[in-house]
Amino acid sequence: MARASIVGAGMTKFGVHEATLPELFAEAALPAMDDAGVEAGDIDAFYLGNAMGGQTENDTHLAPTLASHIGIAGVPCQRFEDACATSSNAFKHAVQDVESGLHDVVIVGGVERCTPETGLGTGEMTRIFASASHRQYEQPTGLTFPGVFALLTKRHMFEYGTTPEQLAAVAVKNHAHGAHNPRAHFGRDIDVSDVLDSPIIADPFHLMDCCPFSDGASAVIVVSDDIADEFDAPVDVTGVGHGTDIIPLSDKPDFPSTMSARRAAEQAYEQADITAADVDFAEVHDCFTGAEVMASEALGLFEDGEGGPAAAEGRTYIDGDMPINPSGGLKAKGHPIGATGTAQLVELVEQLRGDAGDRQIADVETGIAHNLGGDAGTTLVSVLEVRA
Amino acid sequence: MARASIVGAGMTKFGVHEATLPELFAEAALPAMDDAGVEAGDIDAFYLGNAMGGQTENDTHLAPTLASHIGIAGVPCQRFEDACATSSNAFKHAVQDVESGLHDVVIVGGVERCTPETGLGTGEMTRIFASASHRQYEQPTGLTFPGVFALLTKRHMFEYGTTPEQLAAVAVKNHAHGAHNPRAHFGRDIDVSDVLDSPIIADPFHLMDCCPFSDGASAVIVVSDDIADEFDAPVDVTGVGHGTDIIPLSDKPDFPSTMSARRAAEQAYEQADITAADVDFAEVHDCFTGAEVMASEALGLFEDGEGGPAAAEGRTYIDGDMPINPSGGLKAKGHPIGATGTAQLVELVEQLRGDAGDRQIADVETGIAHNLGGDAGTTLVSVLEVRA
Repeated sequence: MARASIVGAGMTKFGVHEATLPELFAEAALPAMDDAGVEAGDIDAFYLGNAMGGQTENDTHLAPTLASHIGIAGVPCQRFEDACATSSNAFKHAVQDVESGLHDVVIVGGVERCTPETGLGTGEMTRIFASASHRQYEQPTGLTFPGVFALLTKRHMFEYGTTPEQLAAVAVKNHAHGAHNPRAHFGRDIDVSDVLDSPIIADPFHLMDCCPFSDGASAVIVVSDDIADEFDAPVDVTGVGHGTDIIPLSDKPDFPSTMSARRAAEQAYEQADITAADVDFAEVHDCFTGAEVMASEALGLFEDGEGGPAAAEGRTYIDGDMPINPSGGLKAKGHPIGATGTAQLVELVEQLRGDAGDRQIADVETGIAHNLGGDAGTTLVSVLEVRA
Repeated sequence: MARASIVGAGMTKFGVHEATLPELFAEAALPAMDDAGVEAGDIDAFYLGNAMGGQTENDTHLAPTLASHIGIAGVPCQRFEDACATSSNAFKHAVQDVESGLHDVVIVGGVERCTPETGLGTGEMTRIFASASHRQYEQPTGLTFPGVFALLTKRHMFEYGTTPEQLAAVAVKNHAHGAHNPRAHFGRDIDVSDVLDSPIIADPFHLMDCCPFSDGASAVIVVSDDIADEFDAPVDVTGVGHGTDIIPLSDKPDFPSTMSARRAAEQAYEQADITAADVDFAEVHDCFTGAEVMASEALGLFEDGEGGPAAAEGRTYIDGDMPINPSGGLKAKGHPIGATGTAQLVELVEQLRGDAGDRQIADVETGIAHNLGGDAGTTLVSVLEVRA
């Protein structure tokens, strides 16, 4: 039996938006409601992910504000913040609360604006993003997120011989996928030399190894398993794992294994009664190319150390044996922080319904989403399946 | 049967602290764990309330950071933000999740620094607090929170004849209570003329009608009802209501009724199978004196329009017929935003255990906490009772 089902999904194009946060969120939430065929009055509760609205736009207490804007004022609602894993944690709580019988129909979504439309430039936004690193031990050193993931990835290279060319292959593949996603921030055919010739940001990452700052919103409608068959095209949620790890980085016994992801995957697979071998495709948190390699191993999709070679061999393309980030991932689709987790779920829903158009993966029944927060201190892994 | 039980409670003194957020939180969390007799290894999950850490200290992704600092790295944890109702919403989810059987022993807490120890003065902090008002419709008008509650209170005065002297009586009483609370930011004997002679902040509020900005932390240990008897002095959680209301203010059909509080109280009383007549005392969200008056009516403790006269008649003192804010409330105890909700629960626990010292209310069996967020867009009401 499913823990819950997703019966509606919507998202904006990721990129640069002039719209305010309420307007932007409505552009994802209302299509999700339409997709599910639910009216405002059908919705019992609202679970919001927004990571940085206070810092970027002096906008907090957003859950009831956004609820009011989409016509569901008065429902229980709350904002979750877990850095980049923000809306996946909101989703976890939504699944728990329909599973326990507390609610029947809930909306889960995320929204964020991270481009200069907020009035903040890349430097200031990088400083704000760095608020998710350790305030006392990491921020004073000047560590920002390219540096955090460069540290993890350098260790991976040392331990397994992962190469810059293998990392670049992740970017090439995700841009190729993004070119087929009309809602992607970027997406065009590039090659490995384009990545390796782009400026160094934090060794080993070149500019083209890094995801962009984006604006965007995404939402899904989650219902309890008992009523899922009343909707068109429900997709089952069979597992949601939530792993955390010690912070700061210097206290982690091991860098490239990203233990929070392994814990989350273990929980999610156990709940869904599957193993990694049952996974047909994955959306993973490729904030940097090295993060996708590490995620693919933490999820058990490849053996430790095989993530880089697998990317370079083309195995993670839509037509490969283990497609990863058919949406283009954070790298090409974009990364509006609080919207990223639920956007991964939107892609899973479209793929599992067979509605993914030019980027449709053949014969998929089981997809997973991997959404990481901070210095891998938080990871959520969700398992979605074609309804039994 | 209780929905859950609180078996441990701890809080720092509210006031001015030099400690970092992790250090400050530990000063509440570790005493709460000691009070419950639980070790780090006994704790299954962590629910954090922090409202403004990103804006005030560039510090986000705080749940795993604080978990690491108190020795529980690796447990599922997340940050909630609902303006001033932040940690009460975290508490709601903790109660739900032990009630559903997901967890057995969880820690819920809040922490915030709001004084110039953050490096921010009162003006900048007031602007940051105002992020919880509507970004597009309220902030551009210059509306900050003294103004928000002045609008609500002015309407209450118009409808019911509530007077400045009645409002001042709330401040006089809460300072008198705070004088008996060693953890209160303020607390000394003042009289009505002290309040009315203090400078006007936002008519009808004088400086002494307003709560202070404080630093502080608070935490409670929540366990499932089935294991509560294994602990010393459990206090039962019999109801937690969560009401929201339309935002912005201009869309509310009615100001002084604070509908989110009425919805939350109705839910909480129904869950606990009580009426307002069964309530022995209350901790309410007196960010401004007018807010306490409106809360006392929304909770049904007094008829609409009777909250002001009741305060002026002394009925809400510790030895009155309906004691309100024995802790001193936000007004005298202080208001470290994210810590306020769980601090109200700490006071309820101490009163219901008979451990409240000089501020102990006689013969109490049922206490409620009322924690409001933003422009009354969110309210949580919790019912705690002596264990049956």
